[in-house]
Amino acid sequence: MTNKTPVGILGATGTVGQRFIQLLEGHPWFEIEWLAASDRSAGKPYVEAAKWNLSTLLPPRIASIPVSPAKPDGRAPKLIFAALDSAAAKEIEPAFAAAGHAVVSNSSAFRMTEDVPLVIPEVNGDHTELIKSQKWYREKGGFMVTNPNCSAIGLVLALAPLDRRFGVDKVFVATMQAVSGAGYPGVPSLDILGNVIPYVAGEEPKMEAESRKLLGSLKGSSVVPADLTLSAHCNRVPVEDGHTESVSLKLHTPATAEEIVAAWREFRCLPQKLKLPTAPEQPVIYDSSPDRPQPRLDRDRGKGMAAVVGRLRPCSIFDWKFTVLSHNTIRGAAGAAVLNGELLRAQGYLR
Amino acid sequence: MTNKTPVGILGATGTVGQRFIQLLEGHPWFEIEWLAASDRSAGKPYVEAAKWNLSTLLPPRIASIPVSPAKPDGRAPKLIFAALDSAAAKEIEPAFAAAGHAVVSNSSAFRMTEDVPLVIPEVNGDHTELIKSQKWYREKGGFMVTNPNCSAIGLVLALAPLDRRFGVDKVFVATMQAVSGAGYPGVPSLDILGNVIPYVAGEEPKMEAESRKLLGSLKGSSVVPADLTLSAHCNRVPVEDGHTESVSLKLHTPATAEEIVAAWREFRCLPQKLKLPTAPEQPVIYDSSPDRPQPRLDRDRGKGMAAVVGRLRPCSIFDWKFTVLSHNTIRGAAGAAVLNGELLRAQGYLR
Amino acid sequence: MTNKTPVGILGATGTVGQRFIQLLEGHPWFEIEWLAASDRSAGKPYVEAAKWNLSTLLPPRIASIPVSPAKPDGRAPKLIFAALDSAAAKEIEPAFAAAGHAVVSNSSAFRMTEDVPLVIPEVNGDHTELIKSQKWYREKGGFMVTNPNCSAIGLVLALAPLDRRFGVDKVFVATMQAVSGAGYPGVPSLDILGNVIPYVAGEEPKMEAESRKLLGSLKGSSVVPADLTLSAHCNRVPVEDGHTESVSLKLHTPATAEEIVAAWREFRCLPQKLKLPTAPEQPVIYDSSPDRPQPRLDRDRGKGMAAVVGRLRPCSIFDWKFTVLSHNTIRGAAGAAVLNGELLRAQGYLR
Amino acid sequence: MTNKTPVGILGATGTVGQRFIQLLEGHPWFEIEWLAASDRSAGKPYVEAAKWNLSTLLPPRIASIPVSPAKPDGRAPKLIFAALDSAAAKEIEPAFAAAGHAVVSNSSAFRMTEDVPLVIPEVNGDHTELIKSQKWYREKGGFMVTNPNCSAIGLVLALAPLDRRFGVDKVFVATMQAVSGAGYPGVPSLDILGNVIPYVAGEEPKMEAESRKLLGSLKGSSVVPADLTLSAHCNRVPVEDGHTESVSLKLHTPATAEEIVAAWREFRCLPQKLKLPTAPEQPVIYDSSPDRPQPRLDRDRGKGMAAVVGRLRPCSIFDWKFTVLSHNTIRGAAGAAVLNGELLRAQGYLR
Repeated sequence: MTNKTPVGILGATGTVGQRFIQLLEGHPWFEIEWLAASDRSAGKPYVEAAKWNLSTLLPPRIASIPVSPAKPDGRAPKLIFAALDSAAAKEIEPAFAAAGHAVVSNSSAFRMTEDVPLVIPEVNGDHTELIKSQKWYREKGGFMVTNPNCSAIGLVLALAPLDRRFGVDKVFVATMQAVSGAGYPGVPSLDILGNVIPYVAGEEPKMEAESRKLLGSLKGSSVVPADLTLSAHCNRVPVEDGHTESVSLKLHTPATAEEIVAAWREFRCLPQKLKLPTAPEQPVIYDSSPDRPQPRLDRDRGKGMAAVVGRLRPCSIFDWKFTVLSHNTIRGAAGAAVLNGELLRAQGYLR
Repeated sequence: MTNKTPVGILGATGTVGQRFIQLLEGHPWFEIEWLAASDRSAGKPYVEAAKWNLSTLLPPRIASIPVSPAKPDGRAPKLIFAALDSAAAKEIEPAFAAAGHAVVSNSSAFRMTEDVPLVIPEVNGDHTELIKSQKWYREKGGFMVTNPNCSAIGLVLALAPLDRRFGVDKVFVATMQAVSGAGYPGVPSLDILGNVIPYVAGEEPKMEAESRKLLGSLKGSSVVPADLTLSAHCNRVPVEDGHTESVSLKLHTPATAEEIVAAWREFRCLPQKLKLPTAPEQPVIYDSSPDRPQPRLDRDRGKGMAAVVGRLRPCSIFDWKFTVLSHNTIRGAAGAAVLNGELLRAQGYLR
Repeated sequence: MTNKTPVGILGATGTVGQRFIQLLEGHPWFEIEWLAASDRSAGKPYVEAAKWNLSTLLPPRIASIPVSPAKPDGRAPKLIFAALDSAAAKEIEPAFAAAGHAVVSNSSAFRMTEDVPLVIPEVNGDHTELIKSQKWYREKGGFMVTNPNCSAIGLVLALAPLDRRFGVDKVFVATMQAVSGAGYPGVPSLDILGNVIPYVAGEEPKMEAESRKLLGSLKGSSVVPADLTLSAHCNRVPVEDGHTESVSLKLHTPATAEEIVAAWREFRCLPQKLKLPTAPEQPVIYDSSPDRPQPRLDRDRGKGMAAVVGRLRPCSIFDWKFTVLSHNTIRGAAGAAVLNGELLRAQGYLR
Repeated sequence: MTNKTPVGILGATGTVGQRFIQLLEGHPWFEIEWLAASDRSAGKPYVEAAKWNLSTLLPPRIASIPVSPAKPDGRAPKLIFAALDSAAAKEIEPAFAAAGHAVVSNSSAFRMTEDVPLVIPEVNGDHTELIKSQKWYREKGGFMVTNPNCSAIGLVLALAPLDRRFGVDKVFVATMQAVSGAGYPGVPSLDILGNVIPYVAGEEPKMEAESRKLLGSLKGSSVVPADLTLSAHCNRVPVEDGHTESVSLKLHTPATAEEIVAAWREFRCLPQKLKLPTAPEQPVIYDSSPDRPQPRLDRDRGKGMAAVVGRLRPCSIFDWKFTVLSHNTIRGAAGAAVLNGELLRAQGYLR
């Protein structure tokens, strides 16, 4: 334990907070030492504060940790993973950054803020450079880093290798999103059993803006958004975990199917080079079966950290069509943040 | 009963065959007199041959009708509704047309055949004119008319009013299709519970080709396909009935949201003028709620014969985005064929 | 409309409140004139206060009715259907009864109160006699009548004909209850998709106590509970509507399968004699198919007011085993209360 | 690999056959060397013959194994795991036993045959002694051992510790069974989405007879069935994996809740003593949460080999009520057979 970086979790009792605990159990670099949640939970041991909702057991050591209030209290470790809803994040996360903490946030509150890096380590790990522009960093060494929305992350993982080689011009995407993306209690069962809800509040603009920032380029102390146009249709379907997305794609430079599949298969990047523990060996997996990827069968590939792509075929309007799937609470939330935390440690930001 | 046209059903025991029976029970124009199915069922009373799978009761008069073999036997009435799978349809339907029957088919086998009308009465009721080119019609008065695929029909109903007023240029569509579209036993439950299958065999090319024929123009004895490009992504979701579709649309002539909604709301056409009994009062219903249409709540509007449209909003690539829903085994299959049968009677083809 | 009894609905915006509105639309005896809900909704037109969640449309006349606060305000009609949760019912319902209203309640708050009738019109319609013992009735003519829990009502409908002929001694029952029984938002989708929850809070003791009161006998001004023992196992399953129950049964007098089925089929009682509009022609339907009843196929039989029984077979411990199904928000809630209201009007309690 | 026992799988392409492959991958004692399936599959490499349907990947070594016909061919190893349907098993399994193979079968065909052991190693591992009575064994050393039905196995695991300490007299059980229990394609999705099927063909008599044999005593060369009466109600619910069962129990000797929970918690037996690799550390896990066990959360406990029990509470008719859950294709099928295979090796039957 001596070499491990102690970490805290803000919003530890919710769906994403629980995933943080699951993913950090036995983590080679990080060790949970501090858990915080809303005032209602504060003071209770974690096992009483949270309704544990995962199919792996709550680790006993975690069960007995008392839940702290969501305030910088001097006892929280430097590195804080934050799984707060957006409204809470707006108030609480800056307070932690100002108090010198490294806040690795899953919330949407600051993703589009100019000096806050929005990062997928495989895609734009160099954007963490923005940290140095944050006044918190200059003052007390604290800072904030964010990961994208759960519906953007799988898509951008699939687009990035193509963007590097051929340039992505235009993207249509229709999502079929799992209910765990809405947290707990989240979507009422009466709304979704045997049903589709063709609406996820706020999701479509997020997908469009975040994709442009993620694929954008660092110029001095800001990010120039990528010059791509994205049109998103977001739907909720009766699936527990795993967002499936139908994509049509226009490239700047024409590419054959073989070249596209090669771009995906050969995509290896910073997290793989740095051997970040949570990085999947292959970040984008192409499955050539005619009816894949499927959430039930493919969401756990690469321990839930891979984007699985399939059904590459010509598009009668753009160039190509395909389907992409990723696990929305692992690659799309807690796992994304843990990987960002690992990147920050490897880059030396946690010293 | 004296004025009613007697009808027969080919493929009466399957999912769509059962819907035919349900929709024709108490029909003011038609009366079921003959039922046929595969040789395995032939000879049995219907109640024993079919595993009735609808939530309304099997009408007792139908239950006792003996199932005939699927061959023109001299006793079958002139008007035949056909709910055969494509392979069976290829052999059986022409035999009936050649024997002088009016075959109103739900199968895909002859939809794209040049002299076979592919008809949605609200959209292209005049295409029945093609009947006169069929050699069966010239020889013995028999003919064949088809309705489109269950995923094309809702979409084309939503496109037609816009095409008339503004011209439809390009369409992206991603479907989320119900399991009843695959018939019975159809999709295994292990494949779809909590899952999405991003593939429906043969569906995407059908949607593209059928839409162009449906929105095309009758020129002499053939149909000039509409000059629109459509790119379809077809997915299966765990919904019993009702296909939901995310659509992006480019028009030839720009239109405002108000103009588009007006085009949908004011869309009244041949079946409404002819007062066809199965025609919905309003074929395209626009629902302005932010999260509609939804299959569980909206599939039965217009007795399952309306296309319900919602979420009209600007598209960052094309002009507009919206969601359309229709009941796949009523408007998308049996109801579509019954409406075609009604049109044919009103147009005098059944005399 | 002149002859119709005006009615009000307490808790009009919830799942059961919406069913009341649906079932009372076009009702031959009753006319909705007043709707009340929590303070949060009060003052708004109904269409804005409620998230309408049924597949039939909200009747336009109802949409514009302003929602009143849930207090006796002098404008509420005599007859009030109440769809409040138990905690709210405890305070609000007695206030209405005390103010002279006939409160027909679906809540559990007063079901076991000694002078409050717990009524299924087919089973114990004579228990309304208890009304005369209520001090509210003696003072201002107000009173309260309740219907049982949604899981008790189908079971007791199936037991009553057997109890009359053979005497019911012991009953094991395991329920598989639909999510709509928990109201809205009710069961989170993450808890129930692809899952079973072997627990419904408070349900098992309710089933046991209510069944004994329902099958009990009126003695003077109280009910002597039936001398039967019932052991209930209550489970939640991913079904929208319709509670399915597996039952094992011990009778006082032995009976053959034919005698039991005859008792169910011949069961006709007060509501059928009084021609109550909501009474199903046949309150208990026996289906001899090997795999019925099923919620998706059978919940709407008798317009959702019948109990459907099937799979009668010998029990190796008790005498017989069977399955019973009833629609939990129609026969098990709003429809039950409407039928109670009709009974009260036929019995003259509403004058 | 030198010390590993080579094994073959009969019926390798089906749902249970795939679980065998999954569970035997990396197994410390066994190594798959031979796969057989129906004639339709024979000759193809496994990857082409099977539609792999699990969320772990098909092991590459297995993918390329050519599928053999389901006949003893001289190349099949001694130990054969059989996942055949009952009709096929009746013909094929005896042919393998007669040819000298140790057939460890999951089928129901021979479970109740007098000299065929029906075994749960934790419960009646000594019943393998029956092998010596089999004429196959005496002639060529071949024999047959079976595991119980997927709905009996979880129940009997929960009953066995109580039977040993207090004696089980009577048992009511209502099951809510997962769709994977019906194999693939198995239950059509139209039959089970949002639905319950109150019928599983042949299941209720199997549960009753098998439980008595499993808890019975070996007397000479036959098993005296346990003197308990069991009444089963079997239902299918929309759950992928995991059978949940509501149980009421009468004991011969009264026991307190504490004594019952202690019996479950302290239950350790032959497979744990023999350190069989697939044996769960704790075969029966008691969970004291009010709403557990649940299939989604608990089916994988003990790597899918534990029976999870919860909700112990008094029964108003018998002594106690509880809920038991087990993974139907692991503990209830392939895992059960693998554990039987391990037991046979430990007992020396495979030499």
